[in-house]
Amino acid sequence: MDEEKQVAYVADIEKELRYVSSWIKQRGREILYDYHITIPQFLALQYLFEAGDMTIGELSTKMFLAFSTTTDLIDRMEKRQLVQRVKDEKDRRVVRIHLLGEGERIIEEVINKRQQYLSGVLAHFNDADIVSLQGILAKLHQEMKEK
Amino acid sequence: MDEEKQVAYVADIEKELRYVSSWIKQRGREILYDYHITIPQFLALQYLFEAGDMTIGELSTKMFLAFSTTTDLIDRMEKRQLVQRVKDEKDRRVVRIHLLGEGERIIEEVINKRQQYLSGVLAHFNDADIVSLQGILAKLHQEMKEK
Repeated sequence: MDEEKQVAYVADIEKELRYVSSWIKQRGREILYDYHITIPQFLALQYLFEAGDMTIGELSTKMFLAFSTTTDLIDRMEKRQLVQRVKDEKDRRVVRIHLLGEGERIIEEVINKRQQYLSGVLAHFNDADIVSLQGILAKLHQEMKEK
Repeated sequence: MDEEKQVAYVADIEKELRYVSSWIKQRGREILYDYHITIPQFLALQYLFEAGDMTIGELSTKMFLAFSTTTDLIDRMEKRQLVQRVKDEKDRRVVRIHLLGEGERIIEEVINKRQQYLSGVLAHFNDADIVSLQGILAKLHQEMKEK
């Protein structure tokens, strides 16, 4: 396809990806009301779930938050036993935030809710579309990792 | 395909969508450093960009934030001339938050950055894949709107 057409396709894919992922996200987050979890708390749980234990500094950078804001956030989450501060075994001065069972359970429940919603939406798709979508997304993911 | 296989596909599509959209999002947000915009400020800009003018109450609900937190957020954004409080013409007691030119410009620049990144990733895809991805995402979006 020519360059102009390609640019239009990319713009459209970016927009559709933004909408689709934002709708799925909203559906997953509906359960957060039941747990009285705030969005920053949820995002911290999600980063820890995906990337494993992190220092407050690393988490601040990921979340675009000030160090002090992240410290307050983690204090509140530690009180609710969602996370725990753990000292590095080799260097006791380094402290990392570790996701606890309850925090992990909430993330898994959110993912479960997202899957249920997506399953309902994909019910109207034929098998070929589902296989094709999975294949192209996996390829996109692979390309992104290699960049 | 049988139900077990379908469940596995849905789980995989949910996961890949989560990764892919989070990578694109991170790339878009890199420019926020240059503008000293925080993530809550950016999210507020994005909601106003997508849904148009909103009351503080509506924005609080969307952002899962307390009313007072959203008020503080909007105060800071109004000082930076990213948004503006506007009284409803018919009912002067109703105040809505309106996105100003500078706020809009930042969102557009983030979207532009996302497109550039996606374009680089899609450079290794053939035309058929790009067309297919666009088509399936548009269909997903349509199904979500109808639900």
